[in-house]
Amino acid sequence: MASVPTIDDLRAAAERIGPWAHRTPVLTCSSLDTMMGARLFFKCENFQKVGAFKFRGATNAVFSLSDRDARRGVATHSSGNHAAALSLAARLRGVQAHVVMPRTSRAVKRAAVVEYGGRIVACEPTLAAREAMLESVIAETGATVIHPFNDPRVIAGQGTAALELLEDVQDLDVVMTPVGGGGLLSGTAIAVASLSPRTRVVAAEPAAADDAFRSLKEGRIVPSVDPQTIADGLLTSLGTLTFAIIRERVAEIVTVSEDAIVAAMRHVWERMKVVIEPSAAVPVGALIEGAFRARGLRVGIILSGGNVDLDQLPWVRR
Amino acid sequence: MASVPTIDDLRAAAERIGPWAHRTPVLTCSSLDTMMGARLFFKCENFQKVGAFKFRGATNAVFSLSDRDARRGVATHSSGNHAAALSLAARLRGVQAHVVMPRTSRAVKRAAVVEYGGRIVACEPTLAAREAMLESVIAETGATVIHPFNDPRVIAGQGTAALELLEDVQDLDVVMTPVGGGGLLSGTAIAVASLSPRTRVVAAEPAAADDAFRSLKEGRIVPSVDPQTIADGLLTSLGTLTFAIIRERVAEIVTVSEDAIVAAMRHVWERMKVVIEPSAAVPVGALIEGAFRARGLRVGIILSGGNVDLDQLPWVRR
Repeated sequence: MASVPTIDDLRAAAERIGPWAHRTPVLTCSSLDTMMGARLFFKCENFQKVGAFKFRGATNAVFSLSDRDARRGVATHSSGNHAAALSLAARLRGVQAHVVMPRTSRAVKRAAVVEYGGRIVACEPTLAAREAMLESVIAETGATVIHPFNDPRVIAGQGTAALELLEDVQDLDVVMTPVGGGGLLSGTAIAVASLSPRTRVVAAEPAAADDAFRSLKEGRIVPSVDPQTIADGLLTSLGTLTFAIIRERVAEIVTVSEDAIVAAMRHVWERMKVVIEPSAAVPVGALIEGAFRARGLRVGIILSGGNVDLDQLPWVRR
Repeated sequence: MASVPTIDDLRAAAERIGPWAHRTPVLTCSSLDTMMGARLFFKCENFQKVGAFKFRGATNAVFSLSDRDARRGVATHSSGNHAAALSLAARLRGVQAHVVMPRTSRAVKRAAVVEYGGRIVACEPTLAAREAMLESVIAETGATVIHPFNDPRVIAGQGTAALELLEDVQDLDVVMTPVGGGGLLSGTAIAVASLSPRTRVVAAEPAAADDAFRSLKEGRIVPSVDPQTIADGLLTSLGTLTFAIIRERVAEIVTVSEDAIVAAMRHVWERMKVVIEPSAAVPVGALIEGAFRARGLRVGIILSGGNVDLDQLPWVRR
């Protein structure tokens, strides 16, 4: 198994991605503070390049490659924010990203990859077809596969958001992130454990896709089976590497209802004037619903992304 | 006529509102930069308290009052962002704001005033009824009327947004704001003329409510007659004081179509991940439509506010 990144790996990642990534601002929201009786600090990764924290990990991975490897390009069969992030990171390095996507992918997802210079390789909409097509892309091009989360370079990159948050805000009692595959969560946990050991790391997960919650409870990776949640960035199961890190360093995973996710998303748009995607709303939903009680605490929350289809808002009845 | 505020008045306003107002961040957007061939710097007053720059002027006015005057409260018959801003500013000073509003006002507007502690005084939906009711409130309470824009304390407060922008971003060629009554525009013009005289101030106005454009052209205040624009913060005509300042210091007013306003609003939401109201989108619309050509320039843009009804988005067909 690939090794667990250290705080030095995170620092090296921060240095490596520094010229390319935004240092995103930390915003506060007095209405949410009042509602929760807490002090909340929102790290706005929705303002990151490509609109999500994923740019950090992808960029760290791509710029970690030797020139020889980089020249052959990079590849993935993930089709969400990671695909867009990898496309842009590759373009910034001057190499090609190959993105295997099911023919059935939504037009907005395809457009994001194309816009950032990625090459789409279409396949049938099954996991087997995606993996087979990825194998054939690699065989043909020699590209390096960059996994969306189960990769130490990616995890180290994602952890740089928490590095910045801990620099900007002192004395946090808790740092919250959403959890899907666990890249952001495990990178955050490494940063916090090293730089602010008394701070707890709490993850929030849709109740309708609670495989990480169950994995932590059962002490083994419980796969996610056909989850149905609006938080479509959190559908994947944990990886071996992210699970190992999370198991050791994450205090708690709480689960959140779909209604609370939508209410939280709307509240953040309405009061903070900030566009976040449903996945980013999950930790805020945990606070609103009381799954995690923040009263009296200083809580850092990573708003993971802001990519939404403005024609498909969850509160608009048609 | 009340006197024109000086740069010292703006500095005093900055000092006075400092403990209460947010110092809002300046964001950039690489997709808009690429589209315009320019460098754009967005001063995010949509993140200001009550979601609009109006909080600056209202707070400066309320905290400029003597204790004796303040105790009797403040009043307005404006019912948009100024009413909410005045309500909060008064509450922060520990006094009452009286807001005269037509019975027909939308529920969201009433709710904002009530939330911030303002007292709503209902009246018939005519200007004559509003003015008569305001007179009677003053007679009864001794409250001081705080005009939404034609007041030097309000103008000085609004100008503090540009003060901050000029501190944060050097060498701007142009600063753009929307124009309605002209409070933000004239405060901005005073700041820019004093601190960065080579920088031009350009205002953007809906073509469907182009009274400021025509006023500047004709050299007299042309009143706004029943304007129909989605930018509902820009319906009012200029005041005597704002017109005098704008006439002397503003380089140009450009007009923008309704379609461009909506397209700009959507682009900012989608790409910058920032919620702005239609009025705030007007300068961006001027760039998109080419009413003002920014190519090769460094342009500061004040995003004036972010208060929208998320159930009534202009691009959602019902």
